[in-house]
Amino acid sequence: MLELDHTSLHGSLTDPVLGSISFLNEVMSRYPDAISFAPGAPNLAHLDHTDLSRFTTGYLDHLTGERGMDAARARRLLHEYGPSRGLINDLVAGALRTDYGIDVPDSAVVITVGAQEAMLLSLRALFGTPADLLAVVTPCFTGIIGAARLLDIGVVAVPEDGDGVDAEQLLAQCQAARSRGRRVRALYVAPDFANPSGTLLPLDRRLRLLDLAEQEDLVILEDTVYGFTALAGEHLPTLKALDRAGRVVQVGSFAKTCLPGARVGYAVADQRIRVADGSTRLLADALADIKTMVTVNTSALSQAVIGGMLLEHGGSLSALGAARAPVYRRNLAALLDALDRRLSGLGGQVSWNRPTGGFFVRLRLPVPADVKLLDVSAADFGVLWTPMSLFHLDGSERDEIRLSCSYLEPDRIDEGAARLAEFVHSIAA
Amino acid sequence: MLELDHTSLHGSLTDPVLGSISFLNEVMSRYPDAISFAPGAPNLAHLDHTDLSRFTTGYLDHLTGERGMDAARARRLLHEYGPSRGLINDLVAGALRTDYGIDVPDSAVVITVGAQEAMLLSLRALFGTPADLLAVVTPCFTGIIGAARLLDIGVVAVPEDGDGVDAEQLLAQCQAARSRGRRVRALYVAPDFANPSGTLLPLDRRLRLLDLAEQEDLVILEDTVYGFTALAGEHLPTLKALDRAGRVVQVGSFAKTCLPGARVGYAVADQRIRVADGSTRLLADALADIKTMVTVNTSALSQAVIGGMLLEHGGSLSALGAARAPVYRRNLAALLDALDRRLSGLGGQVSWNRPTGGFFVRLRLPVPADVKLLDVSAADFGVLWTPMSLFHLDGSERDEIRLSCSYLEPDRIDEGAARLAEFVHSIAA
Repeated sequence: MLELDHTSLHGSLTDPVLGSISFLNEVMSRYPDAISFAPGAPNLAHLDHTDLSRFTTGYLDHLTGERGMDAARARRLLHEYGPSRGLINDLVAGALRTDYGIDVPDSAVVITVGAQEAMLLSLRALFGTPADLLAVVTPCFTGIIGAARLLDIGVVAVPEDGDGVDAEQLLAQCQAARSRGRRVRALYVAPDFANPSGTLLPLDRRLRLLDLAEQEDLVILEDTVYGFTALAGEHLPTLKALDRAGRVVQVGSFAKTCLPGARVGYAVADQRIRVADGSTRLLADALADIKTMVTVNTSALSQAVIGGMLLEHGGSLSALGAARAPVYRRNLAALLDALDRRLSGLGGQVSWNRPTGGFFVRLRLPVPADVKLLDVSAADFGVLWTPMSLFHLDGSERDEIRLSCSYLEPDRIDEGAARLAEFVHSIAA
Repeated sequence: MLELDHTSLHGSLTDPVLGSISFLNEVMSRYPDAISFAPGAPNLAHLDHTDLSRFTTGYLDHLTGERGMDAARARRLLHEYGPSRGLINDLVAGALRTDYGIDVPDSAVVITVGAQEAMLLSLRALFGTPADLLAVVTPCFTGIIGAARLLDIGVVAVPEDGDGVDAEQLLAQCQAARSRGRRVRALYVAPDFANPSGTLLPLDRRLRLLDLAEQEDLVILEDTVYGFTALAGEHLPTLKALDRAGRVVQVGSFAKTCLPGARVGYAVADQRIRVADGSTRLLADALADIKTMVTVNTSALSQAVIGGMLLEHGGSLSALGAARAPVYRRNLAALLDALDRRLSGLGGQVSWNRPTGGFFVRLRLPVPADVKLLDVSAADFGVLWTPMSLFHLDGSERDEIRLSCSYLEPDRIDEGAARLAEFVHSIAA
């Protein structure tokens, strides 16, 4: 059997970020009885007694009803190769207009295999030379770092404080890049309850970021995945909704509001590209062309299910999100309450932030939180979490961990917090 | 609105290969009444009166029956994030063993979003430095060229003759690369009725190719998409089945045997990787890690439908293929018969090959077959085809066209050939 030396393969394969999902799965499989605050998995109890074919039927009814399509033709749409930009981009564009004031043509939306593919396509289109750098707010979702690694795109970190990314830090990175003959081409940011920190970017910082993007000629890649968990009436406008200059490419996902098993997300890219003959086309057209060489198109079966779910909520993304938010808000409240009750006695030994939405809480330990410590926590105390070092570019040890409460029931969250308290006691000075 | 200059974007976007699918769709939409030999679309009539949920149920029954899984757990598998290597890789690996003598562990199979993603993942893993070149048999499927372009992988052409790729031509490319300080890392080849040429690689050439791969330290990326259309009893062993040295990574697709709308394919990669600590892992593990940064995993909804279809054919890929082959064999016979009847009178002005399977016939015109000529053919004669120049790396004009007969009914094939004859008459000397 052929044996390949790892040094002859692509460099991304030796980056821990590519193995991060496997790593978490492997740890979880070794400790099946542990309570796991590790994966940010959606809570899918609402689907337990649901026949998914209902949603497909709903989408087909929409095609034959509102769109006046022949029934056989509609059904064939589910079987055939579809347009690479997607089948339900009109539904998504309509919802973005109505719900979020993001007024883009249907053709500016590309339906993708999850937000992950949307990020990969966006990076591929936007990064033309090795001089182009991607800035990421850190700690940072590993998916964007991994996608950049696959494409050999250089990444620089912009640290966040308790209120998210600081424009001055970003500006400093832009200037530092220029002084090295490079340039920051784009910034990846999740303004709403970011994974892994749970941070919410305040409105004034959103506006400042958009100003800076214009000043520094940046594209902002906005990840909106956790925005739906905000308390009703407390949603901040997305960067894309505030974007007057066309600086923002937005990516979104149906994994959390519908189901991850469908693998459906989207990119919104209404920027214009000036091509050689002087004409222009949408950046979304370029993403769709790139997609023909990645996945060709997004599963029509999956798009029909997601389309049907969206239609059951009146075609509204915010109604869909509002239907799913309560379980996550309940869980987050349960986790923060349990941490208060179980860990406050430890005084300054531990501290944590208090996100107002999202799936994650950031907790600081009295010692570096490495993989060895995770093994101790799992083996001796029966509780799992994610070392924050996974979400930093340099992978260096940190004394922070990420706690995810998204898919557990409140009693398990409380029991997990009790185990966590025992674990912290054991390592406290 | 932000306007991006195309020169600031990734270079792949100016490569015609990325726009090739859009181009064909655009031409077809301009001539809706033309008979189109252009797209290699599967014939999906067998699904017209089929309720796809039957297949999902079949797959769930398999999980709860043979695999003894709890029914609620089985259903949840369709909803959740799944393993990046896939849910049905055991079914695929089992079929490869039983049907084709490809004896690899289940873990050597990665389920992908079509064969396209399988190619992208394989290229990303295998190509470590800019010195690595991909050799492709030309004329060549545009999907592999496009995937290479996205990853900035250099591509060299190995022309084929009527019996497919010539090992000596490949050897010459390997030597030429070495003399330039580069190396051919892998060869992409579709040995069975290749798109676009329809060529079948004879057994002796398959064996010679494997020898050469060993001698030149090449990986062979084998695309098996059209193999199922061979006449019963006339299937040649795949390169992977003949592969004693572990040189072959095989990619396959369910788009043609089941349905493209599911977007399910696979990669078989049982090579070992020697990692830094001296241990080894499967190349498939690396592909699965890369996949976490491209699409995370393949739609579970789609995998369930494909799994169910496979199970309805006794878990046999060859039985599934045998069920679908007759319609393509009928169409190919109809096209060759119609060309004989309609175009033979033109003597040496036109010629075409006589594939014994697949979707495609290669036809030589008396003049260069460019996009302008395609417009004439469509506008004045009502017949569409694909210029062979699309399938060459340099995009240079060729006097050949690709005719696809896969999704048309025989009466339309005959009428299309009649129109083609009129068109050829009009351009003949």
